[in-house]
Amino acid sequence: MSGYSIGVDLGGTNLRVAAVDTNGVMLERVSLPADYSGGPGRVVEHIIETLEQIRASLGRTRLGGVGVGVPGFIDIEHGVVLEASNLPGFTGFAIRDELQRRLDTLVVLENDANAAALGEMWMGAGRGVKDLILLTLGTGIGGGIISHGQILHGFLGMAGEIGHMTIYPDGNPCGCGNTGCLEKHASASAIAALGRSMGLGSEISAAEVFGFAERGDPRALAVFESVGRALGIALASLVNIFNFPLYLLSGGPLPAWDYFAPAMFAELDRRSYTRQRTGTRVEKALLGSDAGLVGAAYLPVQRTSYTEMSAAIGHL
Amino acid sequence: MSGYSIGVDLGGTNLRVAAVDTNGVMLERVSLPADYSGGPGRVVEHIIETLEQIRASLGRTRLGGVGVGVPGFIDIEHGVVLEASNLPGFTGFAIRDELQRRLDTLVVLENDANAAALGEMWMGAGRGVKDLILLTLGTGIGGGIISHGQILHGFLGMAGEIGHMTIYPDGNPCGCGNTGCLEKHASASAIAALGRSMGLGSEISAAEVFGFAERGDPRALAVFESVGRALGIALASLVNIFNFPLYLLSGGPLPAWDYFAPAMFAELDRRSYTRQRTGTRVEKALLGSDAGLVGAAYLPVQRTSYTEMSAAIGHL
Repeated sequence: MSGYSIGVDLGGTNLRVAAVDTNGVMLERVSLPADYSGGPGRVVEHIIETLEQIRASLGRTRLGGVGVGVPGFIDIEHGVVLEASNLPGFTGFAIRDELQRRLDTLVVLENDANAAALGEMWMGAGRGVKDLILLTLGTGIGGGIISHGQILHGFLGMAGEIGHMTIYPDGNPCGCGNTGCLEKHASASAIAALGRSMGLGSEISAAEVFGFAERGDPRALAVFESVGRALGIALASLVNIFNFPLYLLSGGPLPAWDYFAPAMFAELDRRSYTRQRTGTRVEKALLGSDAGLVGAAYLPVQRTSYTEMSAAIGHL
Repeated sequence: MSGYSIGVDLGGTNLRVAAVDTNGVMLERVSLPADYSGGPGRVVEHIIETLEQIRASLGRTRLGGVGVGVPGFIDIEHGVVLEASNLPGFTGFAIRDELQRRLDTLVVLENDANAAALGEMWMGAGRGVKDLILLTLGTGIGGGIISHGQILHGFLGMAGEIGHMTIYPDGNPCGCGNTGCLEKHASASAIAALGRSMGLGSEISAAEVFGFAERGDPRALAVFESVGRALGIALASLVNIFNFPLYLLSGGPLPAWDYFAPAMFAELDRRSYTRQRTGTRVEKALLGSDAGLVGAAYLPVQRTSYTEMSAAIGHL
C-alpha cells in the first residue's frame, strides 16, 4: 500500500470524507450534509462523486483503499449494515460491495465507534498503545475495544457495546430493554435528563447543565458527580476485565471533565485493585469527532498489512 | 513439537501433574499433596522429581514442554509469581526460569483460571470455538478470557478478573476494597453466606444449601435465584462487551444449575439485546477441575506453534 487512503464517516446529518496519507497526515477533507431522502443509492452516488474528486486531485493509482464508518451494527464478513437507526434505508444494504465495485478499490466497513477507537490508536491519545478502550459520550455511549492493535469484533461484530453495561441493576430504563445501562446514567442525554430532574429547566441540554456547573450551581455539580460515579463503576469493571493500559473518553461532555473526573477516579480506585496496583490510564481522547474519520482511513491500511502478513504465513 | 507435553496445576492443597499428547489425550496423571512448609525450593524439587519420573516412562526427547497453572497474579513476561495467597513463599519467586533451567525444556507459567479456559477450548465445552469466557465459581470467582484462540492477558497479565466486576454498586463488601463484586453474590462462598443469612444454619456450606434446594426448601431456592440474578447481570454485561459466542461456568455450584439457571437466563435476556438477537451460548464447562491441568499442558503446545508462526513472518 502506498500513497493515501480515504476515510468516510457516514453520519445521520453529515457525510464527512478525508484523504489521509500512510503516516496519518490529512491531505484533504470534505464535509457535506447527508441527505437520506433519496435512499441509500443516492447517498452512495454522493460518496462516489466526492471520492472521485479527491482521486482526481491526489492521483488514482495512489489510492490504497477506502474505510467507511457507520453508526450501527454491521455484518463485518459481508459488509452489510444490519441496523443503523440514523441511516434511513440502509438496513440490509450491501454498501461495501457496492462501493468496492464502483470504485474498484478495497473498501472496509466498520462501526463508527470502533473506527474512532482505531483512529485514536493510530494518530490520537493512544499512539504507541496496542490495547485500549474508547468510550464516546453522546446521545448514547458507544465503545470501541482495541486488542493487540486490532478492533475486537466479537463473533457478529457487535462487541464494544459498553454503553449497555449494567451499572445500576434497578437504574434508569433503557431503550434496549434493560434498566441501569451506563448510557442512561452518563451520556450527554443522561446529563440533560439529570439536569431536568434537578429542576434546572424542562428543556435543558447537557451543554446548559455544564454552563450551570461553570457558575457553581450545586445541582449541576451534583449531576456531574453522579455521571462521574457511573463512569467510574463501568471503568472499574472494564479495568478488572481487560487490564488494558489505557481507557479514553470522548464526546460532547468532555469539557466538563473537571466536574465529573474526581468522582469517576474515586469510584474507579475503590472498585478496582488492578487500577490501584498498576499505572492504568484514563484520559481524554484527542481527536474529537475526527477520530472516526481518521480511523476509517486507517482501516484499509491495516487490512492491507494484515492480509500481507496472513499471506506470508499461509493462514491466521 | 512432537510427542507430549506436561501440565502442572499448582494448588494450595494439591500438586497435580498430567502428561498429555498433542491430540489432548491424557497419557499419565499424578496427584500429590502440596507441602509448602519447606519453601518454594522444596516444592520445585517435588515438581521436578515427578516430571522426571514421567519423562523416564514416556521418553525424554518426546517432551515438548511444560505448562504450570498457578492460582494468583503472574508477571507473564518474566515468569514470576507476583501474588498467590494460597502458595506461601512463592511471591517474587522466578519459578518458570528455575524449572526451565533444571528441566532444560520450554516452561510456560500461567494463571490457573486462564489455563482452565484454554483447557476448555482445547478439549472441553469450547472445542471448535476460538472466543470464549470461562467463569469458575469457587471460594471466589475466577475468569479466563480466550480471544482469537489466545488468552487475553492485559498489559500486566491481570485480565479476566470477572469475579470483581461490580454487579451491585452498594452490594456486599469484598476483600478487594469494592462493594458488590460478582464473587460476593455468586461464588460458592456467597451461596454459603446467603444460606446463613436465610437462617439455614450458622455453619452451612454451599453444598448443604444445595441439599436444602433439592428438598424444595424455599429459602435455599431463593438463594440460588439470587445467585442466578447476579450471574445474569454479569453475563449480560460481558455479552454486550465481547459479543463472544460462548460463556462457560464451572466449579462446585454447577450441580445447582437447574436452581440458578432460570433466573440467570431471565436477567441475561432482559439485559442484553445482543443475546436476544444472537445465538450466544451460556453452558456448563465440561472438564471440571481437570480444565486447568489440560490447559496447562496446552500452553507449551500453543507457545511452540505461535513461536513458529512468528518466526515465519519475522514479527508479531
